[in-house]
Amino acid sequence: MSVYTPVSEAELAAWLRNYSVGTLAALEPIKAGIENSNYFVTTSQGRYVLTLFERLPAAELPFYLGLMAHLARHGIPCPAPIADLSDQYLQHLNGKPAALVTRLPGRSIERPERVHCTELGALLARLHLAGRSYGVYLENPRGPKWWRVAAKDVMPFLKKPHVEILEKELKFQADHRFPDLPRGPVHADLFRDNALFEKGRISGVIDFYFAGVDCLLYDVAVCANDWCLVDPERDRGFDEGRVRALLGAYHAVRPFSELEREAWPAMLRAAALRFWLSRLHDFHLPRPGMLVHAHDPEHFREVLELRAGGAAPWID
Amino acid sequence: MSVYTPVSEAELAAWLRNYSVGTLAALEPIKAGIENSNYFVTTSQGRYVLTLFERLPAAELPFYLGLMAHLARHGIPCPAPIADLSDQYLQHLNGKPAALVTRLPGRSIERPERVHCTELGALLARLHLAGRSYGVYLENPRGPKWWRVAAKDVMPFLKKPHVEILEKELKFQADHRFPDLPRGPVHADLFRDNALFEKGRISGVIDFYFAGVDCLLYDVAVCANDWCLVDPERDRGFDEGRVRALLGAYHAVRPFSELEREAWPAMLRAAALRFWLSRLHDFHLPRPGMLVHAHDPEHFREVLELRAGGAAPWID
Repeated sequence: MSVYTPVSEAELAAWLRNYSVGTLAALEPIKAGIENSNYFVTTSQGRYVLTLFERLPAAELPFYLGLMAHLARHGIPCPAPIADLSDQYLQHLNGKPAALVTRLPGRSIERPERVHCTELGALLARLHLAGRSYGVYLENPRGPKWWRVAAKDVMPFLKKPHVEILEKELKFQADHRFPDLPRGPVHADLFRDNALFEKGRISGVIDFYFAGVDCLLYDVAVCANDWCLVDPERDRGFDEGRVRALLGAYHAVRPFSELEREAWPAMLRAAALRFWLSRLHDFHLPRPGMLVHAHDPEHFREVLELRAGGAAPWID
Repeated sequence: MSVYTPVSEAELAAWLRNYSVGTLAALEPIKAGIENSNYFVTTSQGRYVLTLFERLPAAELPFYLGLMAHLARHGIPCPAPIADLSDQYLQHLNGKPAALVTRLPGRSIERPERVHCTELGALLARLHLAGRSYGVYLENPRGPKWWRVAAKDVMPFLKKPHVEILEKELKFQADHRFPDLPRGPVHADLFRDNALFEKGRISGVIDFYFAGVDCLLYDVAVCANDWCLVDPERDRGFDEGRVRALLGAYHAVRPFSELEREAWPAMLRAAALRFWLSRLHDFHLPRPGMLVHAHDPEHFREVLELRAGGAAPWID
């Protein structure tokens, strides 16, 4: 269970007196998530999520909370941070930076179909358009600079063929940069478990704590690499119908440029590389006190090899 | 029907392209309300209310929209304005200032009971506490200055005994000012039809277009004069149980000061005076093109006389 910092009902009830959300009715730890301590909070007013930030740099937190607030007031169904009586989103609780955000309805979908990828594509494009007026800047903390640091850290643990794949991919990416792609705030971690659906529509996009400013197309590639596999367990090749549903719905809201079409194959590889690296890092260099199982790094090594060797479906 | 400015589906669909709320699914005029043109708007994302401002001074609109946005992000269930792609809440549609806000669930309650007054009191106190960090200032547009202007306008239409009541009350209020009461943004029009309930809880407070900065206690008095009558049609005296429920729940969240207790009887009279005056004004001096029936001014004359002559229940 990924709750690192305990919070009692009495502690929370006292803390909530600094908010306008009514009185505490229920408090429940959330098991998912690996970076923070999360709780479901129910009050006389509504349903919220309390997050205690365990590891994120304090300087980055205003970017994440401000981005969620910005997107929420543009109508994007994302957690809306609740401001306290001193008009702050970020507070402290039990010695940790902490924030209260709205809890969204719905459930994530393990086996998405084309209709879900259509929903996702449209929402992602709207999120990108809404995000472009957000005035705070944070470079994607898991971007190319981080790849090089992480690669250096994990290299000693890798078998020779994997070292070669990694070195080859870093070289490929360095040779294929697209500085002129449309950029803006991206979610950068919009896996299936970070989207909630209700009655067939997306009811929530959650967990913005890997967000940053990057190519918008990178966000699409992260989604494709998770939502559009033939079978995430057995066949990491693309289900082309789902890829086209994702891209088509996105394109209808924010049309892709010709440059984005050109960059697509390399972007899919970049998105695979980033998660291969973070999973290698978590696997070989787990942080002290890390309570969760590390994801298998092999999954994204295979995704990367398939993207490097195969076709990248695009819309006509 | 109070829709002064027509909006077609095609016009709205085009206008919504400047927002991140998805595509238009349904558009329906709202019959209630007398100041603006309102529509229910359903999109692929959610449910909204579109308001075209027909009469409010343009300079005041940012105060109202900013206040709703401020309260919403503090967790108060009020309509949240949706920002467009240029990050603005206020836009134009068919020649009128216009805004899109979230549509809240629930229904208003015609015959409130004690439990509803308890809900209302707690929410109003939370709204007041949350509002105090709102940085924009607009004096209550229906405050004492306006009373004097409105009284002068309607005086020629009144029978002699009513002229006397009005003059006496203006004199009483001038002699009983409470400049040191706690002040802040107040809703100032929180009648039964401006609160929505769902499953016994307040799910929405709507229509902030009479809001302004005034004594917080004034807001409580406006509520008491509408929510706590024995029978709004036949007996405008107070149901003391409901008044105490309202005040008690409010007091538990934002404790009243001794000065507020002293000011309560005069504040109930001020709140009655304000609505007597506006109803007299709408009745005798209707605005050109006003499509709705004027409320009967006699209701608030009677409320005023009862407050001037009777007891003002308070909590122990």
